[in-house]
Amino acid sequence: MKRLSILGVTGSIGTQTLNVIKKSKGELKLIGATANSSVNKIIEIIDEFNPPYVGMMNLECADEVKKYCIENDKQTTVFSGIEGLNKIASLDEIDIVMTSLVGMIGLEPTLEAIKAKKDIALANKETLVVAGELVMSEAKKYGVKILPVDSEHSAIFQSLRGNDLRTLKKIILTASGGPFRGKKLEDLKNIQVEDALKHPKWNMGRKISIDSATLMNKGLEVIEAHWLFDCDYENIQVVVHPESIVHSMVEYSDASIIAQLGAQDMRLPIQYALNYTERKNLIADTLDFYEVSKLTFEKPDLQTFKPLLLAYKAGKIGGLMPTILNGANEAAVELFLNKKIKFLNIADIIEKSMEVFKSEIDKPLTLKNIIDLDKRVKEYVVSSI
Amino acid sequence: MKRLSILGVTGSIGTQTLNVIKKSKGELKLIGATANSSVNKIIEIIDEFNPPYVGMMNLECADEVKKYCIENDKQTTVFSGIEGLNKIASLDEIDIVMTSLVGMIGLEPTLEAIKAKKDIALANKETLVVAGELVMSEAKKYGVKILPVDSEHSAIFQSLRGNDLRTLKKIILTASGGPFRGKKLEDLKNIQVEDALKHPKWNMGRKISIDSATLMNKGLEVIEAHWLFDCDYENIQVVVHPESIVHSMVEYSDASIIAQLGAQDMRLPIQYALNYTERKNLIADTLDFYEVSKLTFEKPDLQTFKPLLLAYKAGKIGGLMPTILNGANEAAVELFLNKKIKFLNIADIIEKSMEVFKSEIDKPLTLKNIIDLDKRVKEYVVSSI
Repeated sequence: MKRLSILGVTGSIGTQTLNVIKKSKGELKLIGATANSSVNKIIEIIDEFNPPYVGMMNLECADEVKKYCIENDKQTTVFSGIEGLNKIASLDEIDIVMTSLVGMIGLEPTLEAIKAKKDIALANKETLVVAGELVMSEAKKYGVKILPVDSEHSAIFQSLRGNDLRTLKKIILTASGGPFRGKKLEDLKNIQVEDALKHPKWNMGRKISIDSATLMNKGLEVIEAHWLFDCDYENIQVVVHPESIVHSMVEYSDASIIAQLGAQDMRLPIQYALNYTERKNLIADTLDFYEVSKLTFEKPDLQTFKPLLLAYKAGKIGGLMPTILNGANEAAVELFLNKKIKFLNIADIIEKSMEVFKSEIDKPLTLKNIIDLDKRVKEYVVSSI
Repeated sequence: MKRLSILGVTGSIGTQTLNVIKKSKGELKLIGATANSSVNKIIEIIDEFNPPYVGMMNLECADEVKKYCIENDKQTTVFSGIEGLNKIASLDEIDIVMTSLVGMIGLEPTLEAIKAKKDIALANKETLVVAGELVMSEAKKYGVKILPVDSEHSAIFQSLRGNDLRTLKKIILTASGGPFRGKKLEDLKNIQVEDALKHPKWNMGRKISIDSATLMNKGLEVIEAHWLFDCDYENIQVVVHPESIVHSMVEYSDASIIAQLGAQDMRLPIQYALNYTERKNLIADTLDFYEVSKLTFEKPDLQTFKPLLLAYKAGKIGGLMPTILNGANEAAVELFLNKKIKFLNIADIIEKSMEVFKSEIDKPLTLKNIIDLDKRVKEYVVSSI
C-alpha cells in the first residue's frame, strides 16, 4: 500500500487522482489533501475518503472546514496557509506527494516534501520550469524520485524504462498543436478569448488552454523535459501530432525509437507515477488500433507560435531566465483572459520581459530569488500595458 | 567483446550481420560462419574477417574452401555437412549464435547451441514455428537467452524492456500488408509469380516475398511471438500498417501502449540482439518525424488472406499442427514459384494438409517427429497436385 498527500486536490489532476485511489482497491490511501478555498469540495472528500489531514490555503475556509469536522465528528485535522501546505507535503505518514497545484505556489511545498524524503508525483509545471536545477539537485541529495504526471513526460519516462539514460539521444515531444494549428500570424491578430479557450482535444483550465493555444505549454514542457531527463535542449524535438495518441517518444543511441501511446486519459500517467515501479491493472481507457486509422506529424511553426521559440531560448540561457519567461507568460495570459491585451501581445510581452530583466539571470538559484523575481516580473508586465 | 558464429552468413541477415560486426569497432568478433554452397562469398569472408572456423553444408564446396585455405595459408578450419553446422553453433570460443538459416535446417544447430549454453540471436522463423515449445523449454533449462532479430519481434522485445512480463496484456504485431493489400479474392485469382515477388517496401528472398504476399509471413510471426513472449493467441493482434515505421507494439495491464519505431534497417535489430543488454552507437539509418507525415493502421482482411487465419488456427491447436502448417506452406510456395499452382491454391493446400495430417498432431514434440512430419507433409503436397 502507498500512502499519499495530494496538493491541489480539487483541480482536474487532483480529482482524477482521487478516482485512481478509489479504483486502487486499497493499494493507494489518501492521507493528506489541500485546496485553496473550495470548502464544499473538501468536505465531500473528507466524507468519502476520511483523510487524517487536510489543508486550506485560505484561512477563513480552513475555519469553515474545521467547524464542519467538529460538528460532524470527523477525525480530520485541518491546517491552513502555506505552512499547512508544507506540513501536508511532508507528513510522516506518507510515501509520496502528488503536486497538482497550479502556479509558483507549488514550489515551496515540493521542496519541503523532498527534504522529508517523500517521492514526488509531479503535475505542477512551474516547479521544474523555474527551479529545475534546485529541485533535481535536492531530489538527488535526499534520494527522492521525481515521477512525471504530464502525459508527455510520463510517456518519455515510460519509454526510458529499463534503459540506460546515457543511451538517450533525443526526446521527441509531441504537441497537439492547439486550437490554432495551421494558422498564420495574420490569422491570429484578432483572436478572442473565447476562441483561444476552445481546445480541439480536451477541456483544461483557462491558463493552460491559452498556453496550449500559444504553444507556450509545449515550451514549458521542453524545459521540464530538460531537467527531468538531463537532456540538452538541442536534443529535444517538438513534433506536432494533432491526434494526440503518441504521447511522446525517445530516440536511443542506436537509432531505435521507443514511444508510449494510449487513449487521452490522465488517469493512466497518474496511476503509473503513484505505483511506480509497478504497473497496475486497468483504470484508464484503452486504445484499439482497428479504430485508429491515422496518425500525423508535422513541424511546429515557430514564426507564428513564438512562445515555443522563446521557451527554448530561455531554457538554453538558463539561470533565472526561465523564471522570467514563466512569470511574464503567467501575467500576460491573465491580462489576455481579462481582455486587456491581444493574443499576439502575449509573445511580445514575454520577449520584452526577457530583455528587461536579463541582468538578473545569474543570481543564485534560491527559492527566495526565484519567488522575488517572479513577483517583480509580473508587476512589470501589469504596469507596462 | 562478444564472440559469435553466424549460421547462414551469405544470406541477407548474415551479410547485414557482417556489416554490424565491421562497424562494431572490435566489440563483436566473428569466430564461426556457415554457408550452404556459396564458395566465393565464404572465401571473401575468410579474407576479410579471418574467422577461425567455417562450415559448408555441401561437401564438395567444403573441399574447395579447404583447398583455398591451404593454398593461401589461411588459419581457418573448415567443417562440412550438418555436423559442421552443429559444431560451429556450439564452439567453446563463442558467446552467441546468429541463426539466419532459412528453413527447417536451422532447428538442429539451434538446439545444439542451446545445449552448449550459447545465447541465440534468432533470425530463423521455422525454429519457433515448428518447435517453439521444445526450443523455449531447452533455453530455460540451459539458462540461454533467445534474442529475436525479426524487426517485429525485436520491437516487441524492446517495448517489453524493463517491464514485468506478467503485466503484458496484448501484443500488437504490425504488418505491411504486402503487395496485395486492399485486394479481394477475385483480384488474386490470376496473380503471377512476378506480381507476388514485387514487395512494396523491401527486397527479400523469394520464399519470404510470397509469404509476405499471402500474409503467411505474419502468421508465422504470430506463432513466434506466442512462444517468445509467452502470450496467448487471443492477445496477439495483427494490425496492417503499410508505412512499416511502427515495427510493433505491446499493451500493458494499465492500458499503456509501448511501441518501437524506426527506419527500415535490419542492422538495428541485429545490433540490438547481438549486444543485448547494452545499446550501442549508431549503425542503422535514423528516422525524422519532420519527414514522416502520416502513419496508418487497418484491420487485416482474413477472408482474402486466409493463410494468416490458418496460422492462428494451427497455433491455437498446438502440438505438431504448426509443423504441418509450415511444411505445407513451404511446399506450396515452392510449387507456386515453379508455376505449378495458382496463388490462391497456397491457402487451399495448407488447409487441406492440416486436415489430412490432423491425427498426428499429438505425437511427442521431438526433433525427430518434427523433421519426419515436415518431410511427409511436403511429400504429400507435391504428390497431391
